Amino acid sequence: MTDHPRGFASDNNSGAHPEVVDAIAAANEGHVVAYGDDDYTSTARERFREHFGESAEAFIVFNGTGANVASIDALTAPHEAVICTDIAHMHVDECGAPERLAQTKLLTVDHRHGKLSPEDVRRWEARRGDEHQAQPRVVSITQATELGTVYTLEETRAIVEAAHELAMYVHVDGARLANAAVSLDAGLGEITTGAAVDVVSFGGTKNGMLMGEAVVFLRPGIAEHFPFTRKQLGQLASKMRFVAAQFDALLTGDLWRRNASHANSMARRLADAISAIDGVELAYPVEANGVFANLPRPAIGRLRAALPAAMPFYVWDEDTGTIRLMCSWDTTPEDIDELGEALQTAMQDVG
Amino acid sequence: MTDHPRGFASDNNSGAHPEVVDAIAAANEGHVVAYGDDDYTSTARERFREHFGESAEAFIVFNGTGANVASIDALTAPHEAVICTDIAHMHVDECGAPERLAQTKLLTVDHRHGKLSPEDVRRWEARRGDEHQAQPRVVSITQATELGTVYTLEETRAIVEAAHELAMYVHVDGARLANAAVSLDAGLGEITTGAAVDVVSFGGTKNGMLMGEAVVFLRPGIAEHFPFTRKQLGQLASKMRFVAAQFDALLTGDLWRRNASHANSMARRLADAISAIDGVELAYPVEANGVFANLPRPAIGRLRAALPAAMPFYVWDEDTGTIRLMCSWDTTPEDIDELGEALQTAMQDVG
Amino acid sequence: MTDHPRGFASDNNSGAHPEVVDAIAAANEGHVVAYGDDDYTSTARERFREHFGESAEAFIVFNGTGANVASIDALTAPHEAVICTDIAHMHVDECGAPERLAQTKLLTVDHRHGKLSPEDVRRWEARRGDEHQAQPRVVSITQATELGTVYTLEETRAIVEAAHELAMYVHVDGARLANAAVSLDAGLGEITTGAAVDVVSFGGTKNGMLMGEAVVFLRPGIAEHFPFTRKQLGQLASKMRFVAAQFDALLTGDLWRRNASHANSMARRLADAISAIDGVELAYPVEANGVFANLPRPAIGRLRAALPAAMPFYVWDEDTGTIRLMCSWDTTPEDIDELGEALQTAMQDVG
Amino acid sequence: MTDHPRGFASDNNSGAHPEVVDAIAAANEGHVVAYGDDDYTSTARERFREHFGESAEAFIVFNGTGANVASIDALTAPHEAVICTDIAHMHVDECGAPERLAQTKLLTVDHRHGKLSPEDVRRWEARRGDEHQAQPRVVSITQATELGTVYTLEETRAIVEAAHELAMYVHVDGARLANAAVSLDAGLGEITTGAAVDVVSFGGTKNGMLMGEAVVFLRPGIAEHFPFTRKQLGQLASKMRFVAAQFDALLTGDLWRRNASHANSMARRLADAISAIDGVELAYPVEANGVFANLPRPAIGRLRAALPAAMPFYVWDEDTGTIRLMCSWDTTPEDIDELGEALQTAMQDVG
Repeated sequence: MTDHPRGFASDNNSGAHPEVVDAIAAANEGHVVAYGDDDYTSTARERFREHFGESAEAFIVFNGTGANVASIDALTAPHEAVICTDIAHMHVDECGAPERLAQTKLLTVDHRHGKLSPEDVRRWEARRGDEHQAQPRVVSITQATELGTVYTLEETRAIVEAAHELAMYVHVDGARLANAAVSLDAGLGEITTGAAVDVVSFGGTKNGMLMGEAVVFLRPGIAEHFPFTRKQLGQLASKMRFVAAQFDALLTGDLWRRNASHANSMARRLADAISAIDGVELAYPVEANGVFANLPRPAIGRLRAALPAAMPFYVWDEDTGTIRLMCSWDTTPEDIDELGEALQTAMQDVG
Repeated sequence: MTDHPRGFASDNNSGAHPEVVDAIAAANEGHVVAYGDDDYTSTARERFREHFGESAEAFIVFNGTGANVASIDALTAPHEAVICTDIAHMHVDECGAPERLAQTKLLTVDHRHGKLSPEDVRRWEARRGDEHQAQPRVVSITQATELGTVYTLEETRAIVEAAHELAMYVHVDGARLANAAVSLDAGLGEITTGAAVDVVSFGGTKNGMLMGEAVVFLRPGIAEHFPFTRKQLGQLASKMRFVAAQFDALLTGDLWRRNASHANSMARRLADAISAIDGVELAYPVEANGVFANLPRPAIGRLRAALPAAMPFYVWDEDTGTIRLMCSWDTTPEDIDELGEALQTAMQDVG
Repeated sequence: MTDHPRGFASDNNSGAHPEVVDAIAAANEGHVVAYGDDDYTSTARERFREHFGESAEAFIVFNGTGANVASIDALTAPHEAVICTDIAHMHVDECGAPERLAQTKLLTVDHRHGKLSPEDVRRWEARRGDEHQAQPRVVSITQATELGTVYTLEETRAIVEAAHELAMYVHVDGARLANAAVSLDAGLGEITTGAAVDVVSFGGTKNGMLMGEAVVFLRPGIAEHFPFTRKQLGQLASKMRFVAAQFDALLTGDLWRRNASHANSMARRLADAISAIDGVELAYPVEANGVFANLPRPAIGRLRAALPAAMPFYVWDEDTGTIRLMCSWDTTPEDIDELGEALQTAMQDVG
Repeated sequence: MTDHPRGFASDNNSGAHPEVVDAIAAANEGHVVAYGDDDYTSTARERFREHFGESAEAFIVFNGTGANVASIDALTAPHEAVICTDIAHMHVDECGAPERLAQTKLLTVDHRHGKLSPEDVRRWEARRGDEHQAQPRVVSITQATELGTVYTLEETRAIVEAAHELAMYVHVDGARLANAAVSLDAGLGEITTGAAVDVVSFGGTKNGMLMGEAVVFLRPGIAEHFPFTRKQLGQLASKMRFVAAQFDALLTGDLWRRNASHANSMARRLADAISAIDGVELAYPVEANGVFANLPRPAIGRLRAALPAAMPFYVWDEDTGTIRLMCSWDTTPEDIDELGEALQTAMQDVG
């Protein structure tokens, strides 16, 4: 263990990559126009175009709730609804923000390994045109999913196709889009713009920034009113250069990829280590930076006891004994080894 | 002029104080629990208690819109309303965010030098109890005001007294509270808690931070549901330590006061310089870090021409020829001199 | 005085015209499809087209709040705003419903005799395009106004012209549109469609119905999503035939005109009677069915004492001694005489 | 078949009971104070107290959406949520009104014969106190359910007990409460107040009124702000006497019971008739006025063909071949016989 503890509870618990902090310090010179009309921000927006294509219009916001809610708000009228899985972050973990702030209804479908399918989109068609029912208008998928799986390019394309046929938009909650791109060995634009996705919430925070996400419109013509939407929803930063500079740090070189790649490979190493332990099973395919494992329930408490307090993890489902282990850009092989050993001890105790 | 330009357009155009950036770098070690359950945040909250009193409950949010909207939301039911001046930032400059996000109605009163009075509070009493009218529940004052004036402690107390007599709360939009405190030669708590104010939006950004504001509840018992409110309104930072550390930098020593004090004294110097110029008149008393001056209208264009492009200012009212000149923590005496000389030139041209 | 008392407090206090009640009874036969897909409703909608022109799309709602809020909602995105007078019913008397339900901001202008002007529309142009400010998108005028005055056709046209030049819509709150049409000796469509108005809230209740208003879209192409809007805002009647039949009763023959005409002429008679009394002055021109009069303040109490309890009126402004006297479709000349005599007595007592 | 057709599509397709129409005519005399401050309304409110107990506070609204949304709004803060079944009317058939108007999130549970259970309430406890998740605050059950079943008094009591233990309220969507009371051979208050239910949406429309529902608060102290809520949500009738008089007609004598009793017995007769037909199965127990039957899918089209156009019914689930047949206060035995014969014919054709 190093001096500064790292755990597996959340990739939000990690700090910022040093190059990101350096970029902030470098941007801290003199006055620049506030609210995004500055060179740092236009540079960052240009970076997004380089990754997501010439039509991409990126808007910086503060956090994931803001990115998701503002995306949905831009794509829906209040009587329109969003199709997502029953474990979608926006359904489960945003305290009802989409309903309240974007005046939208979420129509949930059962997930399979965190994913939804083209059929889930099509089954909502029956209610089209009935004034008594909120009208499905957006399909929102999470990439990488909340369960650490990744939609293949074909899967994404099939969902987009089904959605577009029914005049619905596709939104990607990309809080971990970088991890998905690395997993698919593809570019950020390749797995989104390349699949005709309409809007992406691109996550900077979990990818090594202090804070900051971006709403990236990929389909031309739908971002027209977004500056007002962002402002009204409380997501417009005054000293925006300090978020823009962070995105620039991520996207100019390959820092975004280095960070995600490292996190994914640590998850792979972790998966290998723990699935080798008798009685431990991976709950889902490990395709990004999250590992879900099923333990005998008594082992969970023992694992906690076997680890230092500063090395927490998250119980995903008490009933099934599923734990969630997230890797970050700064997770070390030593961290993995320590976790693996602790789990082995815990399992022996249970055994 | 230095290498890095500074203008007078907005105190949001300035960067962050170096001590603030250092604090961020120092906080960037290892993992800490996300969403505010960390030591940096509890330290920052303790700092707020030192300034605002033992009962003060501070919650970090991203920006001023978030702080104001969340404050109002915490204090009102949807059928309740907020009394503020017709130039209140929340009425004029937040794109309708309070109405949309907090489901509130703003009841405006004419300002005098940016301020409202106890009579403005009392005149709304007539509508109490009438189900056809939104019920006044909060009085919101801006301190320092949008016009660079400052409520005296007596003025604040009189408003609070009138409000409390009518069972209304008082909210202070303190985007520039530090400047007001310096102006009154008093502490942050002295001019708020000391006047029985209920809630403050405390501004960090204009006081030298990268970004970050705080909703500070001063009256016990009204913050109970606020964690949910903040989350639902999209104002909960995941890596909160990086905002908390900035507040700690401001509030532990006297950085908040140094920054505000410098900005105020630059404004004083600026006011003296330009009011000495024939034909230029101060529009309002200069009590904080903003200077409003009335010029003959042709002089405005000439002033712009006489200044470098990187030294912008803001025309407040085209009709009256009023310009707004904001000073920041980093404004230099040389900046003031340069502005003064340019204005003198502009006025001679008009002569 | 008759057995059944009538007062001057509100044209909402009157009952329904007998022909309206008969129409309800006549519609009460067998089953018809609920929610408006019935013959009664299509007939009523056809009646609206006869009055307002072939493009008119009328949608029945329950009440005035519903009609106004749904109209505004159909015309605005949440970041857009409505220009209206500071005494507009939707601003003063709907408990903040437009802000809460339609997520809109109201931008108020000072009224002159209850009206706004093209200049009031144009002055908001400066804020167009600034993301910090809610964007004006609709001008809402009340016809007849809250003060019993009536926009001339020229006045309405000038406002519409100014609005359309700035890409704004014009909404008419026509809770008393019938009274305005009678006042202008014109048809309902002539004073709305004929002036290129976009949407009307047409009032049935004050015109002799039990209850029921209609949102009438005059500009083609803007009603597309309105069935959803109406349902979602809680304004879709299940047994709609019973409201449709009432509108049919009003609009098929000339009942709407007879009712409004009678109310207006009673107001005229009342105005003549009381303006002949020494010390009583009309506060505004009497152009529809409302009379506003200024009395010496002590006379107000005495007038109340001189009238039977069942004959109430409304004090509009305590400070100026202004009372409001509304006439209805069922006000009788005897009612007027009784009020006139009571006022004469009250004034003599004060004298 | 009589002259005036009646079908089985919806109990909203029936007209109003003649005694209800008479009551409207009788209330149409002279002026009374608008917005509910009249004798008709206080009489109606007293009737509600007679049925629901001395503490019952009834507020008249326009329709079921209004009653449900306003009830929920009165019981929740925006970060709080409502537990209901996945087929709850408010979830499926109100176009997202609860989410939009009451700023609430609906947390759905799988139904069993249209019902939820105490366990469904308790399973949401885990998320209490987590700011990332909307907080369950209300349990809403529909009585009689959307599937024509009825909660027994014991079932209701058990749900209320579970809810109250967790500091949640219980709301009953009683669009067909009268049918449930008749089914349980009990009074309206016995099955609600008697089970400690907190708030009821009481349905007048389906029980024989033209239109009109009531929000009835049974728990003292929670209706305090409701007059504002009702007004702001657009549910305050100006000429309220005309709805109040309808409720008076229903509730003064036993009209409510006669109407519901007749509808229920027609449903019973219908159930008996069609379940005797080979190949037809009742989908759910028939406990109120709705009959759900499973047919071979081809029989549905044939049944439609065998019935007059004016005798529609509703296909509930295309996949399972489930049809819904609703009986009303005016359904006749001849209607039942006609349906039964047509179904027999249809089944023979399929046979």
